[in-house]
Amino acid sequence: MNNIITISREFGSGGKELGKRLADELGYTYYDSEIISMLAKDTKKAKEYIENIATKGEYPYTFEFAKSFESYPVMQSSQTEMLISQAKVLKEVAAKGNAVIVGRAASAILSEYNPMNIFVYADMKSKIKRCKEKATDAEKLTDKQIEKNIREIDKRRKACFSILSGKGWGDKTNYTLCINTSNIEVKAIIPGLKSYAESWFLNK
Amino acid sequence: MNNIITISREFGSGGKELGKRLADELGYTYYDSEIISMLAKDTKKAKEYIENIATKGEYPYTFEFAKSFESYPVMQSSQTEMLISQAKVLKEVAAKGNAVIVGRAASAILSEYNPMNIFVYADMKSKIKRCKEKATDAEKLTDKQIEKNIREIDKRRKACFSILSGKGWGDKTNYTLCINTSNIEVKAIIPGLKSYAESWFLNK
Repeated sequence: MNNIITISREFGSGGKELGKRLADELGYTYYDSEIISMLAKDTKKAKEYIENIATKGEYPYTFEFAKSFESYPVMQSSQTEMLISQAKVLKEVAAKGNAVIVGRAASAILSEYNPMNIFVYADMKSKIKRCKEKATDAEKLTDKQIEKNIREIDKRRKACFSILSGKGWGDKTNYTLCINTSNIEVKAIIPGLKSYAESWFLNK
Repeated sequence: MNNIITISREFGSGGKELGKRLADELGYTYYDSEIISMLAKDTKKAKEYIENIATKGEYPYTFEFAKSFESYPVMQSSQTEMLISQAKVLKEVAAKGNAVIVGRAASAILSEYNPMNIFVYADMKSKIKRCKEKATDAEKLTDKQIEKNIREIDKRRKACFSILSGKGWGDKTNYTLCINTSNIEVKAIIPGLKSYAESWFLNK
């Protein structure tokens, strides 16, 4: 079976960047919640992405701040169909090849793969700092507003994860490895993390 | 400042073995709760250990099962002096050179070193399995008895850690990395973990 790494993350912890860099370092295909949503909506794009874009590594390491704040879905009953469609996409991409998947409760949906499940977190100070570094001039918010947004988004992530997996989001027992990114550059730990992941897949 | 790795661990998770192997792989000196206790009691032995035994790697990877079950202290007021003496030893060994220290709330006592703090855990099935593999014929217990012992020891560890650090034992926010050893051999992940630790110390 293909090697699947899933990443759950607190907002501002650098989990998405970690996922993209780790995918590139390992030569795995990268997917995140936006990509999965896009694939679930558009079959043609899905085919293109899986066959071309992801494998060429053209997806950026930096992610727009405001876009991320806005794009996370509030769980509503009308979205059930979308979630089912996304779960289907997750199963398709996992069957395609080795992959790193950020978000969308992939750890639960792809449990048959016995994935390496990573949770990325950091202290609030580091998360606010990371958000500010990524913000454009048009997105300037106070630390207090950023913290409020972070807490709000993570509350939704927790709820979504719980609905989709029946498990506790951020509860270490649900993960293979929990990585604290406070006061470090995500880039710096990637070679070590690659080596850790390779050891883990060899032994599992 | 010296590189200090502290390891907290659930009983049966292989945390001690992980600490010893990681120390050897990195070329750091290894200490655990039994060694720290011994050093706190006997200055001559302490000197010998720090200068010779630990650096020669003569300490075993396997640890006696029953001895471990018995040796963990129940926190009593009469032990305060011993704990102060152990904290002093911890500061001395950290000042001596790069070290991996298992137990004794070293993460809190040595916080000035900004240590890499690791928490090692596993599901109960894996912990019982690991205990049984290490048990001698004289120590045969049922799974139920082993589970009871594990829970009892971890309860004491939690209490000791809370008293010494004022923080939550096993709460991921207090650690740099939380490692789940369910269904894996500790030995297998050491090269990856060494690489991760080296990256982390370079970046911190």
